[in-house]
Amino acid sequence: MTTSSILFEQWATVHQQRAEQALASALPAADTPPQRLHAAMRYAVLGGGKRVRALLSYAAAELVGAPASSADAAAVAVELIHAFSLVHDDMPCMDDDDLRRGKPSCHKQYGDATALLVGDALQALAFQCLAETAAAQALTQVQILAQATGSRGMCGGQDIDLQSTGQLLTRDALETMHQYKTGALIRAAALLGAYAADHTQEQHIQLLDQYSQNMGLAFQVVDDILDATADTQTLGKTAGKDALQEKSTYVSLLGIDEAKALVKTLYEQSLQSLAGFGPQADSLRGIARFICERPF
Amino acid sequence: MTTSSILFEQWATVHQQRAEQALASALPAADTPPQRLHAAMRYAVLGGGKRVRALLSYAAAELVGAPASSADAAAVAVELIHAFSLVHDDMPCMDDDDLRRGKPSCHKQYGDATALLVGDALQALAFQCLAETAAAQALTQVQILAQATGSRGMCGGQDIDLQSTGQLLTRDALETMHQYKTGALIRAAALLGAYAADHTQEQHIQLLDQYSQNMGLAFQVVDDILDATADTQTLGKTAGKDALQEKSTYVSLLGIDEAKALVKTLYEQSLQSLAGFGPQADSLRGIARFICERPF
Repeated sequence: MTTSSILFEQWATVHQQRAEQALASALPAADTPPQRLHAAMRYAVLGGGKRVRALLSYAAAELVGAPASSADAAAVAVELIHAFSLVHDDMPCMDDDDLRRGKPSCHKQYGDATALLVGDALQALAFQCLAETAAAQALTQVQILAQATGSRGMCGGQDIDLQSTGQLLTRDALETMHQYKTGALIRAAALLGAYAADHTQEQHIQLLDQYSQNMGLAFQVVDDILDATADTQTLGKTAGKDALQEKSTYVSLLGIDEAKALVKTLYEQSLQSLAGFGPQADSLRGIARFICERPF
Repeated sequence: MTTSSILFEQWATVHQQRAEQALASALPAADTPPQRLHAAMRYAVLGGGKRVRALLSYAAAELVGAPASSADAAAVAVELIHAFSLVHDDMPCMDDDDLRRGKPSCHKQYGDATALLVGDALQALAFQCLAETAAAQALTQVQILAQATGSRGMCGGQDIDLQSTGQLLTRDALETMHQYKTGALIRAAALLGAYAADHTQEQHIQLLDQYSQNMGLAFQVVDDILDATADTQTLGKTAGKDALQEKSTYVSLLGIDEAKALVKTLYEQSLQSLAGFGPQADSLRGIARFICERPF
Protein backbone atom coordinates (compact mmCIF):
# COMPACT_ATOMS: atom_id res chain seq x y z
CA MET A 1 0.00 0.00 0.00
CA THR A 2 1.30 3.44 -0.86
CA THR A 3 1.53 6.30 1.62
CA SER A 4 -1.28 8.15 -0.15
CA SER A 5 -3.52 5.08 0.11
CA ILE A 6 -2.88 4.84 3.84
CA LEU A 7 -3.53 8.56 4.32
CA PHE A 8 -6.77 8.30 2.34
CA GLU A 9 -7.90 5.31 4.37
CA GLN A 10 -7.37 7.28 7.56
CA TRP A 11 -9.21 10.28 6.13
CA ALA A 12 -12.07 8.08 4.94
CA THR A 13 -12.45 6.36 8.33
CA VAL A 14 -12.51 9.70 10.16
CA HIS A 15 -15.10 11.15 7.79
CA GLN A 16 -17.25 8.03 7.65
CA GLN A 17 -17.48 8.23 11.44
CA ARG A 18 -18.17 11.95 11.22
CA ALA A 19 -21.05 11.28 8.79
CA GLU A 20 -22.38 8.48 10.98
CA GLN A 21 -22.44 10.75 14.03
CA ALA A 22 -24.03 13.60 12.08
CA LEU A 23 -26.71 11.22 10.81
CA ALA A 24 -27.35 9.85 14.30
CA SER A 25 -27.86 13.42 15.57
CA ALA A 26 -30.02 14.50 12.64
CA LEU A 27 -32.42 11.56 12.93
CA PRO A 28 -35.08 11.90 15.64
CA ALA A 29 -34.35 9.73 18.70
CA ALA A 30 -36.07 6.35 18.76
CA ASP A 31 -38.02 7.39 21.87
CA THR A 32 -39.47 10.51 20.19
CA PRO A 33 -43.07 9.85 19.08
CA PRO A 34 -44.03 8.30 16.74
CA GLN A 35 -41.46 5.89 18.16
CA ARG A 36 -41.88 2.99 15.77
CA LEU A 37 -41.42 5.18 12.69
CA HIS A 38 -38.34 6.81 14.19
CA ALA A 39 -36.87 3.45 15.12
CA ALA A 40 -37.46 2.26 11.55
CA MET A 41 -35.85 5.41 10.13
CA ARG A 42 -32.75 4.88 12.27
CA TYR A 43 -32.68 1.20 11.29
CA ALA A 44 -32.74 2.12 7.61
CA VAL A 45 -30.00 4.74 7.82
CA LEU A 46 -27.51 3.94 10.59
CA GLY A 47 -24.86 1.29 11.02
CA GLY A 48 -23.99 0.43 7.48
CA GLY A 49 -23.01 1.69 4.10
CA LYS A 50 -19.72 3.00 2.80
CA ARG A 51 -20.99 6.59 2.96
CA VAL A 52 -19.40 7.32 -0.43
CA ARG A 53 -21.79 10.22 -0.99
CA ALA A 54 -21.01 11.79 2.38
CA LEU A 55 -17.28 11.40 1.66
CA LEU A 56 -17.76 13.18 -1.66
CA SER A 57 -19.42 16.11 0.13
CA TYR A 58 -16.58 16.38 2.66
CA ALA A 59 -13.92 16.02 -0.05
CA ALA A 60 -15.54 18.68 -2.24
CA ALA A 61 -15.71 21.01 0.77
CA GLU A 62 -11.95 20.44 1.23
CA LEU A 63 -11.34 21.29 -2.40
CA VAL A 64 -12.93 24.71 -1.96
CA GLY A 65 -11.36 25.28 1.47
CA ALA A 66 -14.53 24.91 3.59
CA PRO A 67 -14.24 23.16 6.98
CA ALA A 68 -15.78 19.71 7.42
CA SER A 69 -18.28 21.12 9.94
CA SER A 70 -19.82 23.28 7.21
CA ALA A 71 -20.38 20.17 5.06
CA ASP A 72 -22.07 18.05 7.74
CA ALA A 73 -25.58 19.02 6.59
CA ALA A 74 -24.70 18.24 2.97
CA ALA A 75 -23.25 14.86 3.95
CA VAL A 76 -26.33 14.05 6.04
CA ALA A 77 -28.76 15.19 3.35
CA VAL A 78 -27.23 13.12 0.53
CA GLU A 79 -27.01 10.02 2.72
CA LEU A 80 -30.65 10.44 3.81
CA ILE A 81 -31.76 10.69 0.18
CA HIS A 82 -29.67 7.63 -0.68
CA ALA A 83 -31.10 5.68 2.26
CA PHE A 84 -34.67 6.64 1.33
CA SER A 85 -34.09 5.42 -2.23
CA LEU A 86 -32.77 2.08 -0.96
CA VAL A 87 -35.79 1.58 1.32
CA HIS A 88 -38.27 2.25 -1.49
CA ASP A 89 -36.18 0.36 -4.06
CA ASP A 90 -36.18 -2.79 -1.92
CA MET A 91 -39.98 -2.85 -1.56
CA PRO A 92 -41.97 -5.71 -3.13
CA CYS A 93 -43.47 -3.47 -5.84
CA MET A 94 -39.96 -2.40 -6.91
CA ASP A 95 -36.89 -4.70 -6.69
CA ASP A 96 -38.38 -6.86 -3.93
CA ASP A 97 -35.13 -7.41 -2.08
CA ASP A 98 -35.01 -8.91 1.41
CA LEU A 99 -31.42 -8.06 2.21
CA ARG A 100 -29.68 -4.72 2.57
CA ARG A 101 -26.31 -3.96 4.13
CA GLY A 102 -26.21 -7.51 5.46
CA LYS A 103 -29.50 -7.31 7.37
CA PRO A 104 -33.22 -7.62 6.56
CA SER A 105 -34.32 -4.70 4.40
CA CYS A 106 -36.58 -2.11 6.03
CA HIS A 107 -39.91 -3.51 4.77
CA LYS A 108 -38.93 -7.03 5.90
CA GLN A 109 -38.23 -5.71 9.38
CA TYR A 110 -41.07 -3.18 9.75
CA GLY A 111 -43.64 -4.01 7.05
CA ASP A 112 -44.37 -2.38 3.69
CA ALA A 113 -46.52 0.50 4.97
CA THR A 114 -43.93 1.68 7.48
CA ALA A 115 -41.14 1.30 4.90
CA LEU A 116 -43.09 3.53 2.54
CA LEU A 117 -43.42 6.19 5.27
CA VAL A 118 -39.77 5.77 6.30
CA GLY A 119 -38.65 6.66 2.78
CA ASP A 120 -41.02 9.62 2.59
CA ALA A 121 -39.95 10.95 5.98
CA LEU A 122 -36.23 10.51 5.22
CA GLN A 123 -36.61 12.58 2.06
CA ALA A 124 -38.32 15.37 4.00
CA LEU A 125 -35.64 15.24 6.70
CA ALA A 126 -32.90 15.67 4.08
CA PHE A 127 -34.35 19.01 2.98
CA GLN A 128 -35.04 20.03 6.56
CA CYS A 129 -31.38 19.48 7.50
CA LEU A 130 -30.13 21.58 4.61
CA ALA A 131 -32.60 24.38 5.29
CA GLU A 132 -31.91 24.46 9.03
CA THR A 133 -28.23 25.31 8.56
CA ALA A 134 -29.35 28.68 7.18
CA ALA A 135 -25.94 28.69 5.45
CA ALA A 136 -25.15 31.31 2.84
CA GLN A 137 -25.79 28.96 -0.09
CA ALA A 138 -28.32 26.62 1.54
CA LEU A 139 -31.04 27.50 -0.95
CA THR A 140 -28.77 26.52 -3.85
CA GLN A 141 -28.08 23.25 -2.03
CA VAL A 142 -31.82 22.56 -1.67
CA GLN A 143 -32.30 23.29 -5.36
CA ILE A 144 -29.51 20.96 -6.49
CA LEU A 145 -30.56 18.14 -4.18
CA ALA A 146 -34.24 18.39 -5.13
CA GLN A 147 -33.44 18.25 -8.83
CA ALA A 148 -31.06 15.32 -8.36
CA THR A 149 -33.72 13.43 -6.38
CA GLY A 150 -36.77 14.01 -8.52
CA SER A 151 -38.16 12.92 -11.86
CA ARG A 152 -35.21 14.29 -13.83
CA GLY A 153 -32.80 12.70 -11.40
CA MET A 154 -32.82 9.59 -9.25
CA CYS A 155 -36.58 8.85 -9.36
CA GLY A 156 -36.59 9.32 -13.13
CA GLY A 157 -33.68 6.89 -13.47
CA GLN A 158 -35.51 4.29 -11.42
CA ASP A 159 -38.54 4.68 -13.65
CA ILE A 160 -36.42 4.24 -16.80
CA ASP A 161 -34.89 1.18 -15.14
CA LEU A 162 -38.37 -0.26 -14.46
CA GLN A 163 -39.55 0.40 -17.99
CA SER A 164 -36.46 -1.15 -19.58
CA THR A 165 -36.20 -4.37 -17.56
CA GLY A 166 -36.18 -7.30 -19.97
CA GLN A 167 -35.20 -5.03 -22.87
CA LEU A 168 -31.80 -4.86 -24.51
CA LEU A 169 -30.59 -1.28 -24.04
CA THR A 170 -28.05 0.46 -26.23
CA ARG A 171 -24.96 1.74 -24.46
CA ASP A 172 -26.24 5.32 -24.80
CA ALA A 173 -29.60 4.42 -23.25
CA LEU A 174 -27.85 2.57 -20.43
CA GLU A 175 -25.62 5.57 -19.76
CA THR A 176 -28.59 7.96 -19.73
CA MET A 177 -30.43 5.71 -17.28
CA HIS A 178 -27.48 5.61 -14.91
CA GLN A 179 -26.79 9.32 -15.18
CA TYR A 180 -30.27 9.78 -13.75
CA LYS A 181 -30.38 6.83 -11.38
CA THR A 182 -26.97 6.99 -9.69
CA GLY A 183 -25.04 9.80 -11.34
CA ALA A 184 -27.37 12.64 -10.36
CA LEU A 185 -27.01 12.04 -6.61
CA ILE A 186 -23.23 11.44 -6.84
CA ARG A 187 -22.95 14.77 -8.63
CA ALA A 188 -25.22 16.46 -6.06
CA ALA A 189 -23.10 15.06 -3.23
CA ALA A 190 -20.00 16.74 -4.65
CA LEU A 191 -21.71 20.02 -5.51
CA LEU A 192 -23.44 20.29 -2.13
CA GLY A 193 -20.04 19.97 -0.46
CA ALA A 194 -18.67 22.78 -2.62
CA TYR A 195 -21.69 24.98 -1.87
CA ALA A 196 -21.15 24.43 1.86
CA ALA A 197 -18.64 27.28 1.59
CA ASP A 198 -19.88 30.86 1.88
CA HIS A 199 -18.78 31.53 -1.69
CA THR A 200 -17.95 29.05 -4.43
CA GLN A 201 -16.03 29.73 -7.63
CA GLU A 202 -17.74 28.70 -10.85
CA GLN A 203 -14.51 27.02 -11.98
CA HIS A 204 -14.60 24.67 -8.99
CA ILE A 205 -18.19 23.72 -9.78
CA GLN A 206 -17.31 22.96 -13.40
CA LEU A 207 -14.40 20.71 -12.47
CA LEU A 208 -16.42 18.93 -9.80
CA ASP A 209 -19.10 18.43 -12.39
CA GLN A 210 -16.68 16.68 -14.74
CA TYR A 211 -15.12 14.69 -11.90
CA SER A 212 -18.44 13.52 -10.52
CA GLN A 213 -19.84 12.65 -13.94
CA ASN A 214 -16.94 10.22 -14.40
CA MET A 215 -17.27 8.96 -10.84
CA GLY A 216 -21.01 8.43 -11.10
CA LEU A 217 -20.56 6.33 -14.20
CA ALA A 218 -17.57 4.45 -12.76
CA PHE A 219 -19.56 3.71 -9.62
CA GLN A 220 -22.29 2.09 -11.69
CA VAL A 221 -19.97 0.06 -13.92
CA VAL A 222 -18.21 -1.22 -10.79
CA ASP A 223 -21.58 -2.12 -9.27
CA ASP A 224 -22.46 -4.11 -12.39
CA ILE A 225 -19.10 -5.91 -12.27
CA LEU A 226 -19.53 -6.75 -8.59
CA ASP A 227 -23.11 -7.93 -9.07
CA ALA A 228 -21.81 -10.38 -11.70
CA THR A 229 -18.69 -11.53 -9.86
CA ALA A 230 -19.00 -11.16 -6.07
CA ASP A 231 -21.14 -13.24 -3.71
CA THR A 232 -24.07 -12.11 -1.59
CA GLN A 233 -22.13 -12.21 1.68
CA THR A 234 -19.38 -9.95 0.36
CA LEU A 235 -21.89 -7.49 -1.07
CA GLY A 236 -24.28 -7.43 1.89
CA LYS A 237 -27.07 -7.46 -0.69
CA THR A 238 -28.36 -10.08 -3.08
CA ALA A 239 -25.77 -10.81 -5.80
CA GLY A 240 -26.46 -11.90 -9.37
CA LYS A 241 -29.75 -9.99 -9.38
CA ASP A 242 -29.15 -8.16 -12.66
CA ALA A 243 -28.86 -11.35 -14.73
CA LEU A 244 -31.83 -12.87 -12.89
CA GLN A 245 -33.97 -9.83 -13.64
CA GLU A 246 -32.68 -9.69 -17.23
CA LYS A 247 -31.41 -6.16 -16.77
CA SER A 248 -29.06 -4.58 -19.26
CA THR A 249 -25.76 -3.83 -17.50
CA TYR A 250 -22.29 -2.76 -18.53
CA VAL A 251 -21.24 -6.37 -18.05
CA SER A 252 -24.01 -7.79 -20.24
CA LEU A 253 -23.29 -5.11 -22.84
CA LEU A 254 -19.48 -4.99 -22.83
CA GLY A 255 -18.34 -8.17 -21.09
CA ILE A 256 -16.27 -8.18 -17.89
CA ASP A 257 -12.93 -7.25 -19.46
CA GLU A 258 -14.17 -4.27 -21.40
CA ALA A 259 -16.22 -3.11 -18.39
CA LYS A 260 -13.03 -3.18 -16.29
CA ALA A 261 -11.16 -1.23 -18.97
CA LEU A 262 -13.94 1.36 -18.92
CA VAL A 263 -13.54 1.79 -15.16
CA LYS A 264 -9.81 2.46 -15.68
CA THR A 265 -10.54 5.10 -18.33
CA LEU A 266 -13.11 6.82 -16.13
CA TYR A 267 -10.64 6.79 -13.22
CA GLU A 268 -7.95 8.46 -15.33
CA GLN A 269 -10.40 11.05 -16.62
CA SER A 270 -11.53 11.90 -13.10
CA LEU A 271 -7.90 12.48 -12.06
CA GLN A 272 -7.41 14.74 -15.06
CA SER A 273 -10.25 16.99 -13.88
CA LEU A 274 -8.28 17.50 -10.66
CA ALA A 275 -4.90 18.01 -12.34
CA GLY A 276 -4.81 21.75 -11.59
CA PHE A 277 -5.12 21.21 -7.83
CA GLY A 278 -2.62 20.38 -5.13
CA PRO A 279 -3.20 18.47 -1.89
CA GLN A 280 -6.66 20.02 -1.39
CA ALA A 281 -7.89 17.54 -4.04
CA ASP A 282 -6.21 14.49 -2.48
CA SER A 283 -9.39 13.25 -0.81
CA LEU A 284 -11.28 13.44 -4.12
CA ARG A 285 -8.42 11.51 -5.75
CA GLY A 286 -8.59 8.94 -2.98
CA ILE A 287 -12.35 8.51 -3.43
CA ALA A 288 -11.87 7.97 -7.16
CA ARG A 289 -9.29 5.28 -6.45
CA PHE A 290 -11.50 3.72 -3.76
CA ILE A 291 -14.50 3.54 -6.09
CA CYS A 292 -12.56 2.26 -9.09
CA GLU A 293 -10.36 -0.25 -7.30
CA ARG A 294 -13.21 -2.20 -5.69
CA PRO A 295 -13.50 -4.91 -8.36
CA PHE A 296 -9.75 -5.37 -8.94
CA MET B 1 -76.45 33.42 -0.33
CA THR B 2 -74.88 36.49 1.28
CA THR B 3 -72.74 39.00 -0.62
CA SER B 4 -69.64 37.88 1.25
CA SER B 5 -70.33 34.25 0.25
CA ILE B 6 -70.61 35.23 -3.40
CA LEU B 7 -67.44 37.31 -3.23
CA PHE B 8 -65.59 34.42 -1.60
CA GLU B 9 -66.82 31.97 -4.23
CA GLN B 10 -65.49 34.25 -6.94
CA TRP B 11 -62.17 34.65 -5.14
CA ALA B 12 -61.92 30.88 -4.60
CA THR B 13 -62.64 30.10 -8.27
CA VAL B 14 -60.02 32.59 -9.45
CA HIS B 15 -57.39 31.25 -7.07
CA GLN B 16 -58.21 27.59 -7.68
CA GLN B 17 -57.61 28.24 -11.38
CA ARG B 18 -54.45 30.17 -10.55
CA ALA B 19 -53.16 27.20 -8.51
CA GLU B 20 -54.11 24.77 -11.26
CA GLN B 21 -52.17 26.77 -13.85
CA ALA B 22 -49.18 27.16 -11.55
CA LEU B 23 -49.18 23.39 -10.94
CA ALA B 24 -49.45 22.66 -14.67
CA SER B 25 -46.40 24.89 -15.30
CA ALA B 26 -44.38 23.50 -12.40
CA LEU B 27 -44.87 19.86 -13.41
CA PRO B 28 -42.58 18.65 -16.22
CA ALA B 29 -44.42 18.30 -19.56
CA ALA B 30 -45.70 14.82 -20.37
CA ASP B 31 -43.35 14.66 -23.39
CA THR B 32 -40.24 15.38 -21.28
CA PRO B 33 -38.36 12.11 -20.60
CA PRO B 34 -39.00 9.98 -18.67
CA GLN B 35 -42.40 10.50 -20.29
CA ARG B 36 -44.41 7.83 -18.51
CA LEU B 37 -43.37 9.06 -15.07
CA HIS B 38 -44.17 12.65 -15.99
CA ALA B 39 -47.55 11.65 -17.40
CA ALA B 40 -48.29 9.80 -14.16
CA MET B 41 -47.22 12.79 -12.05
CA ARG B 42 -49.55 15.08 -14.01
CA TYR B 43 -52.35 12.52 -13.72
CA ALA B 44 -51.93 12.41 -9.94
CA VAL B 45 -51.87 16.18 -9.45
CA LEU B 46 -53.93 17.95 -12.12
CA GLY B 47 -57.63 18.19 -12.81
CA GLY B 48 -59.13 17.61 -9.45
CA GLY B 49 -59.16 18.56 -5.83
CA LYS B 50 -60.55 21.56 -4.05
CA ARG B 51 -57.05 23.05 -3.64
CA VAL B 52 -57.89 24.08 -0.07
CA ARG B 53 -54.18 24.16 0.82
CA ALA B 54 -53.32 26.40 -2.13
CA LEU B 55 -56.21 28.71 -1.20
CA LEU B 56 -54.84 28.94 2.34
CA SER B 57 -51.44 30.01 0.99
CA TYR B 58 -52.99 32.70 -1.20
CA ALA B 59 -55.29 33.90 1.59
CA ALA B 60 -52.41 34.10 4.09
CA ALA B 61 -50.37 36.07 1.55
CA GLU B 62 -53.31 38.50 1.30
CA LEU B 63 -53.40 38.85 5.07
CA VAL B 64 -49.79 40.04 5.13
CA GLY B 65 -50.18 42.17 2.01
CA ALA B 66 -48.12 40.02 -0.40
CA PRO B 67 -49.32 39.68 -4.02
CA ALA B 68 -50.73 36.35 -5.21
CA SER B 69 -47.81 35.93 -7.63
CA SER B 70 -45.41 35.76 -4.67
CA ALA B 71 -47.45 32.89 -3.18
CA ASP B 72 -47.62 30.73 -6.32
CA ALA B 73 -44.61 28.63 -5.30
CA ALA B 74 -46.07 28.12 -1.83
CA ALA B 75 -49.44 27.09 -3.29
CA VAL B 76 -47.75 24.69 -5.71
CA ALA B 77 -45.48 23.20 -3.07
CA VAL B 78 -48.25 22.43 -0.57
CA GLU B 79 -50.49 20.93 -3.26
CA LEU B 80 -47.61 18.75 -4.54
CA ILE B 81 -46.97 17.46 -1.02
CA HIS B 82 -50.68 16.79 -0.57
CA ALA B 83 -50.89 14.98 -3.93
CA PHE B 84 -47.82 12.86 -3.12
CA SER B 85 -49.39 11.85 0.20
CA LEU B 86 -52.62 10.79 -1.55
CA VAL B 87 -50.73 8.70 -4.12
CA HIS B 88 -48.79 6.84 -1.44
CA ASP B 89 -51.78 6.63 0.89
CA ASP B 90 -53.90 4.93 -1.78
CA MET B 91 -51.32 2.20 -2.44
CA PRO B 92 -52.17 -1.43 -1.58
CA CYS B 93 -49.75 -1.53 1.36
CA MET B 94 -51.45 1.53 2.89
CA ASP B 95 -55.17 2.29 2.50
CA ASP B 96 -55.53 0.26 -0.73
CA ASP B 97 -57.99 2.61 -2.39
CA ASP B 98 -58.87 2.32 -6.08
CA LEU B 99 -60.64 5.64 -6.41
CA ARG B 100 -59.39 9.20 -6.01
CA ARG B 101 -61.00 12.42 -7.14
CA GLY B 102 -63.54 10.40 -9.09
CA LYS B 103 -61.01 8.48 -11.19
CA PRO B 104 -58.77 5.42 -10.73
CA SER B 105 -56.06 6.15 -8.17
CA CYS B 106 -52.51 6.52 -9.48
CA HIS B 107 -51.35 2.96 -8.76
CA LYS B 108 -54.49 1.54 -10.43
CA GLN B 109 -53.72 3.56 -13.54
CA TYR B 110 -49.91 3.23 -13.66
CA GLY B 111 -48.99 0.34 -11.38
CA ASP B 112 -47.56 0.27 -7.86
CA ALA B 113 -43.91 0.85 -8.76
CA THR B 114 -44.62 3.97 -10.79
CA ALA B 115 -47.00 5.28 -8.11
CA LEU B 116 -44.23 4.91 -5.54
CA LEU B 117 -41.87 6.93 -7.76
CA VAL B 118 -44.58 9.49 -8.56
CA GLY B 119 -44.97 10.26 -4.86
CA ASP B 120 -41.22 10.46 -4.32
CA ALA B 121 -40.73 12.74 -7.32
CA LEU B 122 -43.64 15.01 -6.35
CA GLN B 123 -42.13 15.53 -2.92
CA ALA B 124 -38.77 16.50 -4.44
CA LEU B 125 -40.50 18.84 -6.90
CA ALA B 126 -42.24 20.65 -4.04
CA PHE B 127 -38.92 21.60 -2.47
CA GLN B 128 -37.42 22.43 -5.84
CA CYS B 129 -40.25 24.89 -6.58
CA LEU B 130 -39.81 26.67 -3.26
CA ALA B 131 -36.04 26.86 -3.61
CA GLU B 132 -36.13 28.09 -7.20
CA THR B 133 -38.07 31.24 -6.30
CA ALA B 134 -34.98 32.42 -4.42
CA ALA B 135 -37.44 34.58 -2.45
CA ALA B 136 -36.29 36.41 0.65
CA GLN B 137 -37.79 33.86 3.05
CA ALA B 138 -37.63 30.76 0.82
CA LEU B 139 -35.32 28.92 3.19
CA THR B 140 -37.81 29.39 6.03
CA GLN B 141 -40.52 28.05 3.72
CA VAL B 142 -38.44 24.94 2.95
CA GLN B 143 -37.86 24.41 6.65
CA ILE B 144 -41.54 24.69 7.55
CA LEU B 145 -42.71 22.47 4.70
CA ALA B 146 -40.09 19.80 5.38
CA GLN B 147 -41.03 19.62 9.04
CA ALA B 148 -44.75 19.49 8.24
CA THR B 149 -44.15 16.67 5.74
CA GLY B 150 -41.81 14.44 7.70
CA SER B 151 -41.91 12.11 10.67
CA ARG B 152 -43.09 14.80 13.10
CA GLY B 153 -45.69 15.93 10.60
CA MET B 154 -47.78 14.24 7.93
CA CYS B 155 -45.75 11.01 7.61
CA GLY B 156 -45.72 10.64 11.38
CA GLY B 157 -49.48 11.07 11.49
CA GLN B 158 -49.96 8.39 8.87
CA ASP B 159 -47.79 6.04 10.90
CA ILE B 160 -49.80 6.73 14.07
CA ASP B 161 -52.94 6.09 12.01
CA LEU B 162 -51.56 2.74 10.80
CA GLN B 163 -50.55 1.67 14.30
CA SER B 164 -53.91 2.59 15.80
CA THR B 165 -56.26 1.01 13.25
CA GLY B 166 -58.60 -1.36 15.08
CA GLN B 167 -57.84 0.33 18.41
CA LEU B 168 -60.16 2.62 20.33
CA LEU B 169 -58.36 5.96 20.62
CA THR B 170 -59.00 8.57 23.28
CA ARG B 171 -60.03 11.98 22.03
CA ASP B 172 -56.59 13.35 22.93
CA ALA B 173 -54.84 10.61 20.96
CA LEU B 174 -57.14 11.17 18.00
CA GLU B 175 -56.43 14.89 18.08
CA THR B 176 -52.67 14.34 18.22
CA MET B 177 -52.86 11.95 15.27
CA HIS B 178 -54.76 14.46 13.16
CA GLN B 179 -52.55 17.38 14.17
CA TYR B 180 -49.73 15.41 12.58
CA LYS B 181 -51.62 13.80 9.70
CA THR B 182 -53.69 16.69 8.35
CA GLY B 183 -53.09 19.66 10.62
CA ALA B 184 -49.37 20.03 10.00
CA LEU B 185 -49.75 20.57 6.25
CA ILE B 186 -52.78 22.87 6.67
CA ARG B 187 -50.70 24.97 9.05
CA ALA B 188 -47.72 24.90 6.66
CA ALA B 189 -49.97 26.04 3.80
CA ALA B 190 -50.97 29.14 5.75
CA LEU B 191 -47.48 29.91 7.06
CA LEU B 192 -45.84 29.46 3.64
CA GLY B 193 -48.26 32.00 2.23
CA ALA B 194 -47.33 34.47 4.97
CA TYR B 195 -43.60 33.87 4.38
CA ALA B 196 -44.07 34.59 0.67
CA ALA B 197 -43.74 38.25 1.66
CA ASP B 198 -40.28 39.76 1.92
CA HIS B 199 -40.82 40.37 5.63
CA THR B 200 -43.41 38.82 7.93
CA GLN B 201 -44.48 40.09 11.34
CA GLU B 202 -44.29 37.59 14.18
CA GLN B 203 -47.82 38.61 15.23
CA HIS B 204 -49.23 37.51 11.86
CA ILE B 205 -47.54 34.14 12.20
CA GLN B 206 -48.98 33.62 15.67
CA LEU B 207 -52.52 34.40 14.57
CA LEU B 208 -52.22 32.24 11.47
CA ASP B 209 -50.94 29.50 13.71
CA GLN B 210 -54.07 29.68 15.88
CA TYR B 211 -56.36 30.00 12.88
CA SER B 212 -54.83 27.06 11.05
CA GLN B 213 -54.78 24.86 14.11
CA ASN B 214 -58.55 25.27 14.36
CA MET B 215 -58.97 24.85 10.61
CA GLY B 216 -56.81 21.72 10.47
CA LEU B 217 -58.88 20.09 13.15
CA ALA B 218 -62.18 21.27 11.65
CA PHE B 219 -61.12 19.91 8.28
CA GLN B 220 -60.58 16.46 9.79
CA VAL B 221 -63.83 16.41 11.78
CA VAL B 222 -65.71 17.41 8.61
CA ASP B 223 -63.92 14.63 6.71
CA ASP B 224 -65.01 12.13 9.32
CA ILE B 225 -68.61 13.38 9.14
CA LEU B 226 -68.64 13.17 5.34
CA ASP B 227 -67.08 9.70 5.32
CA ALA B 228 -69.94 8.54 7.55
CA THR B 229 -72.79 10.37 5.80
CA ALA B 230 -72.02 11.08 2.11
CA ASP B 231 -71.87 8.58 -0.73
CA THR B 232 -68.89 7.60 -2.86
CA GLN B 233 -70.03 9.53 -5.91
CA THR B 234 -70.37 12.78 -3.98
CA LEU B 235 -66.99 12.33 -2.32
CA GLY B 236 -65.07 11.17 -5.42
CA LYS B 237 -63.37 8.68 -3.12
CA THR B 238 -64.57 5.56 -1.35
CA ALA B 239 -67.11 6.46 1.36
CA GLY B 240 -67.71 4.59 4.62
CA LYS B 241 -64.08 3.46 4.73
CA ASP B 242 -63.43 4.49 8.31
CA ALA B 243 -66.10 2.24 9.76
CA LEU B 244 -65.03 -0.59 7.46
CA GLN B 245 -61.42 -0.30 8.59
CA GLU B 246 -62.50 0.10 12.22
CA LYS B 247 -60.76 3.44 12.53
CA SER B 248 -61.41 5.74 15.44
CA THR B 249 -62.97 8.96 14.11
CA TYR B 250 -64.64 12.00 15.60
CA VAL B 251 -67.94 10.45 14.55
CA SER B 252 -67.25 7.11 16.22
CA LEU B 253 -66.00 8.92 19.32
CA LEU B 254 -68.53 11.78 19.62
CA GLY B 255 -71.47 10.81 17.42
CA ILE B 256 -72.63 12.89 14.45
CA ASP B 257 -74.37 15.64 16.43
CA GLU B 258 -71.51 16.37 18.77
CA ALA B 259 -69.06 16.20 15.88
CA LYS B 260 -71.09 18.84 14.05
CA ALA B 261 -71.17 21.00 17.18
CA LEU B 262 -67.40 20.73 17.40
CA VAL B 263 -67.07 21.99 13.83
CA LYS B 264 -69.15 25.04 14.76
CA THR B 265 -66.97 25.79 17.78
CA LEU B 266 -63.79 25.47 15.73
CA TYR B 267 -65.25 27.77 13.09
CA GLU B 268 -66.04 30.44 15.67
CA GLN B 269 -62.58 30.15 17.20
CA SER B 270 -60.94 30.54 13.81
CA LEU B 271 -62.91 33.74 13.20
CA GLN B 272 -61.83 35.06 16.60
CA SER B 273 -58.16 34.71 15.60
CA LEU B 274 -58.90 37.05 12.71
CA ALA B 275 -60.96 39.55 14.72
CA GLY B 276 -58.27 42.23 14.69
CA PHE B 277 -58.14 42.32 10.88
CA GLY B 278 -60.24 44.08 8.27
CA PRO B 279 -60.96 42.97 4.70
CA GLN B 280 -57.42 41.58 4.21
CA ALA B 281 -58.61 38.57 6.28
CA ASP B 282 -61.83 38.05 4.32
CA SER B 283 -60.43 35.22 2.20
CA LEU B 284 -59.27 33.39 5.32
CA ARG B 285 -62.76 33.88 6.79
CA GLY B 286 -64.29 32.54 3.60
CA ILE B 287 -62.07 29.44 3.65
CA ALA B 288 -63.08 28.78 7.26
CA ARG B 289 -66.75 28.98 6.27
CA PHE B 290 -66.16 26.83 3.19
CA ILE B 291 -64.43 24.12 5.19
CA CYS B 292 -66.90 24.14 8.05
CA GLU B 293 -70.09 24.37 6.00
CA ARG B 294 -69.42 21.31 3.84
CA PRO B 295 -71.41 18.81 5.92
CA PHE B 296 -74.34 21.11 6.72
